[in-house]
Amino acid sequence: MNTKLQELKSRLREASDLNSAASVLYWDQTTYMPSGGAAARGRQMAALQMLAQEKATDPAIGRLLDDLQPYEESLPYEDDDASLLRVARRDYERQTRLPADFVGEMAEHSIESYQTWIKARPANDFAAVAPMLEKTLDLSRRYADYFPGYDHIADPLIDESDPGMTVATLRPLFKELRAQLVPLVDAIAAQPVPDDSFIYRDFMEQQQWDFGVDIVRRYGYDFERGRQDKTHHPYMIRFSAGDVRITTRFSKNNLIDGLFSTLHEAGHAMYEQGVALDYDATPLGHGASSGVHESQSRLWENVVGRSRPFWSYFYPRLQAVFPAQLNDVSEDAFYRAINLVRPSLIRVDADEVTYNLHVIIRFELELALLEGTLAIKDLPDAWQASYQESLGIQAPDNRDGVLQDVHWYSGPIGGVFQGYTLGNIMGAAFWQAATQANPDVTNDIAQGEFATLHSWLADNIYRHGRKFTADELIERVTGGALSIDPYVAYLRGKFGEMYGIDRT
Amino acid sequence: MNTKLQELKSRLREASDLNSAASVLYWDQTTYMPSGGAAARGRQMAALQMLAQEKATDPAIGRLLDDLQPYEESLPYEDDDASLLRVARRDYERQTRLPADFVGEMAEHSIESYQTWIKARPANDFAAVAPMLEKTLDLSRRYADYFPGYDHIADPLIDESDPGMTVATLRPLFKELRAQLVPLVDAIAAQPVPDDSFIYRDFMEQQQWDFGVDIVRRYGYDFERGRQDKTHHPYMIRFSAGDVRITTRFSKNNLIDGLFSTLHEAGHAMYEQGVALDYDATPLGHGASSGVHESQSRLWENVVGRSRPFWSYFYPRLQAVFPAQLNDVSEDAFYRAINLVRPSLIRVDADEVTYNLHVIIRFELELALLEGTLAIKDLPDAWQASYQESLGIQAPDNRDGVLQDVHWYSGPIGGVFQGYTLGNIMGAAFWQAATQANPDVTNDIAQGEFATLHSWLADNIYRHGRKFTADELIERVTGGALSIDPYVAYLRGKFGEMYGIDRT
Repeated sequence: MNTKLQELKSRLREASDLNSAASVLYWDQTTYMPSGGAAARGRQMAALQMLAQEKATDPAIGRLLDDLQPYEESLPYEDDDASLLRVARRDYERQTRLPADFVGEMAEHSIESYQTWIKARPANDFAAVAPMLEKTLDLSRRYADYFPGYDHIADPLIDESDPGMTVATLRPLFKELRAQLVPLVDAIAAQPVPDDSFIYRDFMEQQQWDFGVDIVRRYGYDFERGRQDKTHHPYMIRFSAGDVRITTRFSKNNLIDGLFSTLHEAGHAMYEQGVALDYDATPLGHGASSGVHESQSRLWENVVGRSRPFWSYFYPRLQAVFPAQLNDVSEDAFYRAINLVRPSLIRVDADEVTYNLHVIIRFELELALLEGTLAIKDLPDAWQASYQESLGIQAPDNRDGVLQDVHWYSGPIGGVFQGYTLGNIMGAAFWQAATQANPDVTNDIAQGEFATLHSWLADNIYRHGRKFTADELIERVTGGALSIDPYVAYLRGKFGEMYGIDRT
Repeated sequence: MNTKLQELKSRLREASDLNSAASVLYWDQTTYMPSGGAAARGRQMAALQMLAQEKATDPAIGRLLDDLQPYEESLPYEDDDASLLRVARRDYERQTRLPADFVGEMAEHSIESYQTWIKARPANDFAAVAPMLEKTLDLSRRYADYFPGYDHIADPLIDESDPGMTVATLRPLFKELRAQLVPLVDAIAAQPVPDDSFIYRDFMEQQQWDFGVDIVRRYGYDFERGRQDKTHHPYMIRFSAGDVRITTRFSKNNLIDGLFSTLHEAGHAMYEQGVALDYDATPLGHGASSGVHESQSRLWENVVGRSRPFWSYFYPRLQAVFPAQLNDVSEDAFYRAINLVRPSLIRVDADEVTYNLHVIIRFELELALLEGTLAIKDLPDAWQASYQESLGIQAPDNRDGVLQDVHWYSGPIGGVFQGYTLGNIMGAAFWQAATQANPDVTNDIAQGEFATLHSWLADNIYRHGRKFTADELIERVTGGALSIDPYVAYLRGKFGEMYGIDRT
């Protein structure tokens, strides 16, 4: 039995190594590659991904999984081998259901669609992308049809990044969250808008960089097993347990963009660095889901990084780095500026409160598209109507409306956006559990100390990798099902206090 | 026929893409990778190289080559398709002769041997590496035996990096060169030693970097299709026609180490950037051989970069960058310092004249080892005796003697060192042809202009990639066989003048 398990692991490691190699090529492409390298690089990455897919769907893996089933069943659910086999089977079954031709067609269409979007967005030209979206929608439905037996056509797409999550669970959860958020946004909008003009003064890039690096080092991001580089669109990437990198970008005239991007990506990276080393290059050797990942990035970015205790420690230090720019700005003014709530058009720039409304708008629109109750041609109008309804604003054109996010133009429709809001909801649940287990966490943060929080997260979330699903992690940590209550309580508490709004 | 050629090219491209991917991983490993990434990275690179080898030796390639033989024979020798088929066949026959097990055994042993050497060298412990060398020698002989019919056991090893070259050609060539060099070294040694102490003053790294980058940009190295990064042991690496990178290192207390390393690697890189774009990701898409490659690196480093016309233009500029360090140093003194000839122990630091003696010593020793006329245990003594004979010096210990170069400790014995001296010999031949064809080359260099030289090299050498062997290139350019005469004339001319030695 052990020989078969070893053979299985070796085959899975080979597929993982090829994917990691493709990741290194991607990282290089987005950080250091000279422009001349683009054409060959695309081809090289595609070759690696195709080979990785071939290896991962080799029928020999299916046979080994069958042979090892009795062994798996003889073990407790939480056993490492049992978990490896369970997750490997889930991956194998999912990947083998999608024909290679279909995967190739999707990949090719994604590239064409992305290339079209890149030009269409600045030209405000929805008509140019509409036929692309029609095909994307068709492909997304065909994707779902490879997983018959679903309750909702979006479920197989959601299951890809958030295993176990379904429309039946998410729709009511998001509906309830929206119902809680809209009045909060309205109440905040009735208050005076804090001044944040000083955020846009001149801040030397290198000092911004150093300040951010100092914080994420204190957070617990290990630079012996990672590094930070500059790119256009920041992301975290894992090559192995010992090499988990983050990327960031800085703007001289924006103090917080680069800083919070660094904190966000470090949150993702600490999760990956914290996965049990034994799981490296196995199906367990990654974060559990898109939602759990986002819970970590947004917890370290927002719940910690935009909190009062955090800035009570770091603001004097930030002032010392930028005295000319910040000596006339009080800690309280700074805190209000970085937490300013304001209905706005751009999701990625949105504050903690309105952010979820951006996500829920997209989630509902993509469900309607998949269900066939909304046509692509009507999408721009539906977008505007949703923004009017949820945020009380409308984009002046499609550029900052329906053409805004890359997602629908570079992948399937469905299965991506839910992760962002799931992350916020789960992050608050984990935060509540962590602070209940260790009441000192907040005091430690006010001393620039993060070890208590980091080890709690490492013990309860990080080390498990993909062993448990998001629901299982939530159940283990909170003793119950996923609920929006901790998140709503967190938002009401923080922003109620800041804006002087009744917390009930 | 065309379909088969397309299929062949597609299979060759796949193997090439996997090798390029492995190269990106190597580049990252030696430039930016955090230390924690080492273990997985080694495994990932090995996986890629094994897959590339599998693809390159797929029997389907052999069948396609057979099927395409009539087509190849119907074409002129210089035709692109004919050349592609010819070189692809040469590669395929070579690679399929080596069993995968043997390749794996060599790769594994190389790593073990290298790890041993890394510790043994600082400890001056030849006894530790001796058993490794015994096995390396055994493997090198077995390597040769996969190519029966050779005249000399080193020939198959030499043929790997310098196709067509044999001991029968090289031994007399090197013997004659040695006979010319030893008296020249002796004559120089009888002259006063120029002062070069100012080279070791304090020079800010960033200024060194910028000065070097400016020069190689003028040389014609295209930064849109390349870039320079820092590493421990500088090298050039090609990922595709549009992405050919160089690496370098700088030392604050050595003005010339980093500069000439940059010029050297840029010489390699311009060669790769100049290969016909159509050849990218085919067997023709690289430099012709180790020797031809070295001819370009050493031509741009030494023949151009250490010449009087070059420094007549650049020295005032260098002084402007480092006024405090160089204003008391005349151009003539600087020129003498960077061209100082002095028998020394370390090959990589050796001057243009003695450098070849270092190479020839190693070449003769490895032939003796392969022939069985020298035993590993006697290698340290033989090393010392050779240095005494050729350079009149001896290393105080094995550290700077037989343990000096990484080559024997990380690859086969035989087949590597000849390329360095071949490069010098060929470089002088190409230089002579280029300056005869364009008498303005030297004047242009004195104006900081390199386009004439660069285009001559691109036309006559670079664009052909691997279409022609080194011998064929030499024949096309000089109308005759490889000769040491241009090289000896070059050395006598340059150093005779500098040291006031009779040029006859």
